[in-house]
Amino acid sequence: MPPDPYFCGPGLDRADQLRADPGAIAELLSHAGAKQLQWTDGAPALDEHGKLSWQPIDGEPAIFLGFDGADPRFSHLYDGEVPANAYAHIPLLALLDDQEAPTFAAALSLANWHRRHGHCSVCSHRTEPNRGGWSRICPNCSAEHYPRADPVVIMLAEYDGRLLLGRQPQYPPGRYSALAGFVEPGESIEDAVARELKEEAGIDVSKVRYMCSQPWPFPSSLMIGAHAMANDDALTIDRNELDDARWFSREEVVAALAGDPEAPFQPPSKWAIARTLLDHWVDGLK
Amino acid sequence: MPPDPYFCGPGLDRADQLRADPGAIAELLSHAGAKQLQWTDGAPALDEHGKLSWQPIDGEPAIFLGFDGADPRFSHLYDGEVPANAYAHIPLLALLDDQEAPTFAAALSLANWHRRHGHCSVCSHRTEPNRGGWSRICPNCSAEHYPRADPVVIMLAEYDGRLLLGRQPQYPPGRYSALAGFVEPGESIEDAVARELKEEAGIDVSKVRYMCSQPWPFPSSLMIGAHAMANDDALTIDRNELDDARWFSREEVVAALAGDPEAPFQPPSKWAIARTLLDHWVDGLK
Repeated sequence: MPPDPYFCGPGLDRADQLRADPGAIAELLSHAGAKQLQWTDGAPALDEHGKLSWQPIDGEPAIFLGFDGADPRFSHLYDGEVPANAYAHIPLLALLDDQEAPTFAAALSLANWHRRHGHCSVCSHRTEPNRGGWSRICPNCSAEHYPRADPVVIMLAEYDGRLLLGRQPQYPPGRYSALAGFVEPGESIEDAVARELKEEAGIDVSKVRYMCSQPWPFPSSLMIGAHAMANDDALTIDRNELDDARWFSREEVVAALAGDPEAPFQPPSKWAIARTLLDHWVDGLK
Repeated sequence: MPPDPYFCGPGLDRADQLRADPGAIAELLSHAGAKQLQWTDGAPALDEHGKLSWQPIDGEPAIFLGFDGADPRFSHLYDGEVPANAYAHIPLLALLDDQEAPTFAAALSLANWHRRHGHCSVCSHRTEPNRGGWSRICPNCSAEHYPRADPVVIMLAEYDGRLLLGRQPQYPPGRYSALAGFVEPGESIEDAVARELKEEAGIDVSKVRYMCSQPWPFPSSLMIGAHAMANDDALTIDRNELDDARWFSREEVVAALAGDPEAPFQPPSKWAIARTLLDHWVDGLK
């Protein structure tokens, strides 16, 4: 099995059984160990030690994130400005450990979702945070709305010992990474992998294997990593989606992962599941 | 690998590259082979041969489902009454083949989503179908909204050769099935499996393995089947979620799957991924 990608881990004890009890959550706000997350530039802030920055409770934060040991952890909904490039924060995240990284991901995904879901999609009325911030409820039509976790497949296609990687237009210069796309209604993970590889690169695959998964809070995805065996290596690239797609040999992938300046491409960042997939492929899939 | 669960399969050619071109889709409506899905009681109708019922184009159906060979397939948004128990349709579905079953799932999931998303969650304005029915767009604030596919983990926990199965209150008498729950923001699949088993049954697990996945259009889930090894067999059952949960021996599971009247439980239906997981476990996980 591949190692856990970044953002994975148990995180806080979410104590979801408390979410249906607003009285219990309100009581936790006055707990001696209660803290709330500090936000900056549209994301949870890090302190000078590379840890999430927790502050004393101020007001009534809408999101109950769970417990760190016996100490309750909260967050306000972030309603400030969000910088144009949310990804600018990511390098800092490498400092977070596997309890704090999933907490960062949960808080940011929830905040992203609340910001775009202030109104009821059924009747248009203004909705209110509910269940400790893990849903919103409509006071007009009673519809309850839950946060999204949008499944995305991201996959390495292999043919004759070589890997298919592609370039999206917004990538930094030289970077190639795994192809990816949203799972659509009416599709399994395996069906979505096959469809995306056909659409974006024109290849048919005969065998799709799940590898690992990762929460991705930009804005709120569940990344699902897979490996597929291609039936042929002739490519028909969808230029609306990709700048380029190419097959790379094992030696080329090894050189890229090692940071060799002569390598034919730059690999994805270490916090991306695509990097986990590449590292695992080079080690030999198990 | 497990066999494909029900509703899996390539289905129609979704031809997603056409979705951004409303002119091209409008032109397909007058194609000689164009057909639209018939609906009844809140779900796509089946004809007397156990096939999806396709009719001549009438009006301007909002959903472009894709191509069956060269023939375009459409669906209107269903805005009639939805029966209280949508599951009543499921037994009929066993008649659908692996092209039509995923088409049924896609059309029903999309229709379910459109019905609850007529308003913009950002600004409250009425939204309109977009991209051949694969999104909705807000004419006021320009926000685009995509259909949901909500990831759900559903898992067999094993300890000492026995399997943990549970009863939800709404199950038919005697039925036990795999425990399940929604993947939350900030969680990987593996983290969600571990959390749900801890919350619902009080067990810790040490190893989580992905098995298979399935689209589930009641209303719009991506079911993700997994297997986990439990560290202990002492249960603490969350009675808000489950009527009961118990460990069953291999012999008991075999008897239940064989329909033995002496079996200690009724297994899930064959169109449920939980059944695929049980069949695969009995065959020996590979």
